Amino acid sequence: MSDEYQRRLAPAALLAQDRSLERWVSIPDQVAGLYRIWRPTPLYRARALERELDTPAEIYFKYEGQSPSGSHKLNSALAQAYYAKQEGVGRLVTDTGAGQWGSALALAGALIGIEVTVYMVRASYHHKPGRRHLMETYGATVLPSPGTTTAAGRSFLSQDPEHPGSEATAVTEALEVVRSDPDARFSMGAFANHVLLHQTVIGLEAREQLALAGASDVDYLVASVGCGSNLGGLMLPWMADKLRGAQITMLGVEPTACPTLTQGEYRWDYADAMGQGPSTRTYTLGHEFVPPPIHAGGLRYHGAAPLVGLLRHEGILDAIAYRQTEVFSAGALFARLTGLVPAPETAHAIRAVIDIARRCREQSRKATILFSYSGHGLLDLGAYGRFNSGELQDVESLEQSTDSPRPPAFQEVSA
Amino acid sequence: MSDEYQRRLAPAALLAQDRSLERWVSIPDQVAGLYRIWRPTPLYRARALERELDTPAEIYFKYEGQSPSGSHKLNSALAQAYYAKQEGVGRLVTDTGAGQWGSALALAGALIGIEVTVYMVRASYHHKPGRRHLMETYGATVLPSPGTTTAAGRSFLSQDPEHPGSEATAVTEALEVVRSDPDARFSMGAFANHVLLHQTVIGLEAREQLALAGASDVDYLVASVGCGSNLGGLMLPWMADKLRGAQITMLGVEPTACPTLTQGEYRWDYADAMGQGPSTRTYTLGHEFVPPPIHAGGLRYHGAAPLVGLLRHEGILDAIAYRQTEVFSAGALFARLTGLVPAPETAHAIRAVIDIARRCREQSRKATILFSYSGHGLLDLGAYGRFNSGELQDVESLEQSTDSPRPPAFQEVSA
Repeated sequence: MSDEYQRRLAPAALLAQDRSLERWVSIPDQVAGLYRIWRPTPLYRARALERELDTPAEIYFKYEGQSPSGSHKLNSALAQAYYAKQEGVGRLVTDTGAGQWGSALALAGALIGIEVTVYMVRASYHHKPGRRHLMETYGATVLPSPGTTTAAGRSFLSQDPEHPGSEATAVTEALEVVRSDPDARFSMGAFANHVLLHQTVIGLEAREQLALAGASDVDYLVASVGCGSNLGGLMLPWMADKLRGAQITMLGVEPTACPTLTQGEYRWDYADAMGQGPSTRTYTLGHEFVPPPIHAGGLRYHGAAPLVGLLRHEGILDAIAYRQTEVFSAGALFARLTGLVPAPETAHAIRAVIDIARRCREQSRKATILFSYSGHGLLDLGAYGRFNSGELQDVESLEQSTDSPRPPAFQEVSA
Repeated sequence: MSDEYQRRLAPAALLAQDRSLERWVSIPDQVAGLYRIWRPTPLYRARALERELDTPAEIYFKYEGQSPSGSHKLNSALAQAYYAKQEGVGRLVTDTGAGQWGSALALAGALIGIEVTVYMVRASYHHKPGRRHLMETYGATVLPSPGTTTAAGRSFLSQDPEHPGSEATAVTEALEVVRSDPDARFSMGAFANHVLLHQTVIGLEAREQLALAGASDVDYLVASVGCGSNLGGLMLPWMADKLRGAQITMLGVEPTACPTLTQGEYRWDYADAMGQGPSTRTYTLGHEFVPPPIHAGGLRYHGAAPLVGLLRHEGILDAIAYRQTEVFSAGALFARLTGLVPAPETAHAIRAVIDIARRCREQSRKATILFSYSGHGLLDLGAYGRFNSGELQDVESLEQSTDSPRPPAFQEVSA
């Protein structure tokens, strides 16, 4: 990958953040001001869930679903739009699957004043149009991928006029546009170090709030993991404590349909599905891996962010995988107990929290659990509808069947 | 209407609240505890909107969209479920159009522990299933109206097997169930005095918050109005001030498609569309009036709550009507400026606030405006999609056309 191409890939300030050795990077005033639309997000204690499980554990969650775009993604989107605007970039181009990241960047563009173009996986564009309407309401241009605006898109369509699209086609089209428009930059919703950096506002706020609640000694940190921007954002602020010996179990929760951290390999691989580069060393299922269609679109990615892969490789991060129906079962229980309908991604974390809390009951063990409620599920109610009516299927990969044994339970540091 | 029937219509505590002469009615501890899931709701100042309009007016809004069920409706739903539970009622039965009220009561039932059955207008049940999935996720039984579970429903279907349903069919079926099940009570989402009483938590909180923000002298109170539970909830806490001479303009905003307060009559009429009773004196378009299909389903009601009708009749409440496209235009602008996508109902209030703030600019006049952001529009994105693509139509009634002159502007008390 040439230097010229890398310069064009993202605003220079973000590439510098990727390589920064500074412990603290200030949040620019304008970004901090915009965060005040919904931040600090509440830290809730899930007392109804504790009662339901009859557990001695204390369960806290950081409620990122309060963001106007619906998830934690807006934390990084605003920062990226800000730095792009500072550098005179005219347009940010990105890819989106179900649309959480695209919605966040569309809103950031509206608030900061920068044009946003989103290539959205064609099947979602047509069949799950809610977030497309949201992005368009925020003023973004949303195009189905594959589509006819790029050479790559036309090529995909000539091979299959009914091509449903994928993250791979969307990234490929977005990168083609960035290469041909000097005024444009590519914007990443996860993976890169700068994205995880921006997301640490989640964990930093949560630490202060837990201290106010008198629960500063956390035993479990739990987050769903696709690439890991939500997980990194929650957990990185505790990393120094953990490396100094604090007894904290850090648990990433993923779908059995895309079991990157529980069944992937730690090796060099491409971040993009086309193998165009750059390549990085991380946990991966292989860049050509295509996960089956599950509703947690944000967790359908073959590789972990390099920082998250390293933490897993070093034995600092534990991981567990769950099947789709057991995840939705946890999400629906949480909705009935609290009123909050979690995104399918978030429901993965809740599923794991429930199992940890039950183990605490069996062992009569007090513990403080904190998980990231990464986003709301109000645009995923169709999937809950399928779950409610018994239509939802478990879709597995890697030759698992729904009868196959579970991936081995995670190793608990503090058990 | 017999006493027996009236007793069966609602829990006794709620009927007593309808007739109470007490100035203050305490919120029960359990209800207050559950309010803490999302209350107090934030009071925001819409600085971005002020800048966009270049107005000297200060614009505040009370953000009821933060409720887990999505709107202010949960304020009354929790209180109603609580009193029903106290009196040993086994089941609450209700009607819902687009589902805001049904979602709120379904969640209240889950949190309080009481069964909920919702008759949902059949067209919405099938074509706008989001809130149906939400109600079912909360554990409620949701039935399309007309349906086959009641004699009335079967009768409607025998007349027209493709009957799309209406509030009228849904109420009729719900009341039939309540008459036949001694363990059941009917639950109303609006209209009754007790519903408006429960909603005053909106205005009471807002008064305290405005005082904290140093803006206690409000000049305009603005709310969308279907029956008026949202409007009453916001404005009733200022009524004593207004009656003592405070210069406050109280403005109800309704659709031109259902112009109850701007074109209705003040007279005795039935609250239900079948004319079964009871009848009350209020502003009404006639109980047989069927408004055309607009997306603001919550504003499609022929009559105002009696308290709201009285305020209009006494000249205390002003009113204005807007067309659907100008309402969505205001909602989309608000979304781009703040990230918050308002429900179509809420967008009516925003439309009026924009016009007031523009007049303040023209007159170089400072003013403090407070409106109720009654609910979020995340389950109404299909309607925004139609607006974005230019497909949304204005649908009028009462022989208006889109070219017809606007209803006369409201009289401003403070101008």
